Amino acid sequence: MTILIREDIGAVAKLTLNSPERLNALSDEMLAVLTSMLDTLSSDASVKAVIIAGSGKAFCAGHDLKQMQAKRADDDGGAAAFKDLFDRCATMMGKIQSLPQPVIAQVHGIATAAGCQLVATCDLAVAAEGTRFGVNGVNIGLFCSTPMVALTRNIGRKAAFEMLTTGRFIETEEAQRLGLINRHVPADDLAEATLELAQAIAGKLGSAVRHGKGAFYEQAEMTTQDAYAFTGDVMVRNMADDDTDEGINAFLEKRPPNWE
Amino acid sequence: MTILIREDIGAVAKLTLNSPERLNALSDEMLAVLTSMLDTLSSDASVKAVIIAGSGKAFCAGHDLKQMQAKRADDDGGAAAFKDLFDRCATMMGKIQSLPQPVIAQVHGIATAAGCQLVATCDLAVAAEGTRFGVNGVNIGLFCSTPMVALTRNIGRKAAFEMLTTGRFIETEEAQRLGLINRHVPADDLAEATLELAQAIAGKLGSAVRHGKGAFYEQAEMTTQDAYAFTGDVMVRNMADDDTDEGINAFLEKRPPNWE
Amino acid sequence: MTILIREDIGAVAKLTLNSPERLNALSDEMLAVLTSMLDTLSSDASVKAVIIAGSGKAFCAGHDLKQMQAKRADDDGGAAAFKDLFDRCATMMGKIQSLPQPVIAQVHGIATAAGCQLVATCDLAVAAEGTRFGVNGVNIGLFCSTPMVALTRNIGRKAAFEMLTTGRFIETEEAQRLGLINRHVPADDLAEATLELAQAIAGKLGSAVRHGKGAFYEQAEMTTQDAYAFTGDVMVRNMADDDTDEGINAFLEKRPPNWE
Repeated sequence: MTILIREDIGAVAKLTLNSPERLNALSDEMLAVLTSMLDTLSSDASVKAVIIAGSGKAFCAGHDLKQMQAKRADDDGGAAAFKDLFDRCATMMGKIQSLPQPVIAQVHGIATAAGCQLVATCDLAVAAEGTRFGVNGVNIGLFCSTPMVALTRNIGRKAAFEMLTTGRFIETEEAQRLGLINRHVPADDLAEATLELAQAIAGKLGSAVRHGKGAFYEQAEMTTQDAYAFTGDVMVRNMADDDTDEGINAFLEKRPPNWE
Repeated sequence: MTILIREDIGAVAKLTLNSPERLNALSDEMLAVLTSMLDTLSSDASVKAVIIAGSGKAFCAGHDLKQMQAKRADDDGGAAAFKDLFDRCATMMGKIQSLPQPVIAQVHGIATAAGCQLVATCDLAVAAEGTRFGVNGVNIGLFCSTPMVALTRNIGRKAAFEMLTTGRFIETEEAQRLGLINRHVPADDLAEATLELAQAIAGKLGSAVRHGKGAFYEQAEMTTQDAYAFTGDVMVRNMADDDTDEGINAFLEKRPPNWE
Repeated sequence: MTILIREDIGAVAKLTLNSPERLNALSDEMLAVLTSMLDTLSSDASVKAVIIAGSGKAFCAGHDLKQMQAKRADDDGGAAAFKDLFDRCATMMGKIQSLPQPVIAQVHGIATAAGCQLVATCDLAVAAEGTRFGVNGVNIGLFCSTPMVALTRNIGRKAAFEMLTTGRFIETEEAQRLGLINRHVPADDLAEATLELAQAIAGKLGSAVRHGKGAFYEQAEMTTQDAYAFTGDVMVRNMADDDTDEGINAFLEKRPPNWE
């Protein structure tokens, strides 16, 4: 059994975390195959949007705690292994945001700890009604410090602090209100609604989306002035694409663009 | 016909983008007159608040695409002209935020691309119910990378990313919930509600508002510690104003301040 | 009469601002005792959560204006005294966020100017229905420039700018929607609801909460990449705690942790 299934639906690559007996934990193996898959997708021009879903009862329950505890047998009590694990996890999360194509989390069941971080990290998220989100490591004595990085870049401080220190779960309506997900739909409609969103994006001019996503996270960390200088250059490069020339002309001439 | 109308209503300067046949596009001419007007207003002590509205069916539909396409005939395919355009646009947006007086967008119809950026850039925004907001350049192959700078400094990441990559329009209720506008009112009440907000601000002590707005965007880009050092100095300068001395005394003596 | 009452309820230290005749203003004396108390609490391992409440009709109405005006008699018109005051206030606010234990504002009546800043600064906030929040210094000619620092790190720009320049008060429902408070409850339930939240946090493993809170505000000011490197190290240190080892083992063995 492969722990990461890739299914291509037109220009959408749908990845399914497939380790349901572990609630799709981000084990060493899962991190490795996800990282490798993101590397593959990054240079696959046929793919214009990516979905990350989970099989079984949960989207993703975070790190593989059994695997982590086993590292305590190392000479250093596991310190080097833990550091390496969090580095590999952060690298994988970073690759989602630096991937040229938008990535949509298709979330159901529970998304906890690094699983909630994964939702926060994806560019977009659609969730089944009743999905529960938590950064609840504090309940077992391991504060969700790395998930906090992604969470606090999605939702406000007061709400994030409460989730982190109380371990309280939030459901879809609150998650949307806070900004953690884009929308929620009945569970039966989840796959279709997520695919529709992916296809809507896949139907856009890929080069334009790549220009834009490539600038999204970088400009967010700049001063406004620097961000304008940076994105101005991005716009100039975007304008230089022949397909953009055609897109604008088509709009001005009130006809569909000829993008093939 | 002038493409930018200025009407002074007491201490409120109301600017109306007046190129309705182009949906008040930010053409070279419009950018030039807006920039020049902002420079004029910045040193006009009689003006205590500014409104930016639009005539015709739309608030502002972004850049003037015809004018941009014409630059492709340049030797470099327009690259230098485009860079210059985005620089001039960013400069104008920057002048709104560095203007000593608060600027309120009075929005109706549609606010798209750089028009949506203009709403996001203004200090405050009031919109007519039914107004549609979009950063929909992706639909014609030109990702709204510069509007993204202003948008992502107003609303959360997930919502911004969706608007940018799907081109989806949002309406007033969602725009308010996300933080893009302050409030929405029936279309018939728009001008009056916006003017009321402007007059409420114009009724405050102008020197105090200037101290505060002058610090608002700068402190937002600092660390908390630096921001406190900076705004502490601003408070000291504010306290040194005679009118502030009078304002505090009046409050302590439970009488209206004598500010003339 | 002491102007700051400390009452310990189990592992929760409840501080009550007790200068009701001054609406619990952050006078020189109040800042001094609060700062000193925060220093004491920071090294008190028996305390796992802190509540800041106010006695009388208001939570806190900001600085002590009478005391400030008296400084105008100084040779420099009070400039040095004002600078010193804002420094001491910012230092106290900083100590709330650098305190190892979470701090919850228990808010009722009004929270204005530096009192609203205090709410924004606390890690969490629970408010009685009907509480009014304002950064209304502009009404007396003293723009709330230092409160702005805390406020704009809690709520969106458009809403913050409006509160600051119009002096408009918001009530609990809006305060929650914007992100200034975590929740609101009927006035009669305020003390109990706040204590419950504090106890929920106090019931967690204290070392884990300290690791997490110690990283919360620091990582928020870093780039995502730096924040991951930083919090990865925090996670490694958290994993090295014996109690965390026990907490994870207990979870894996489906039994309560033995933390005493």
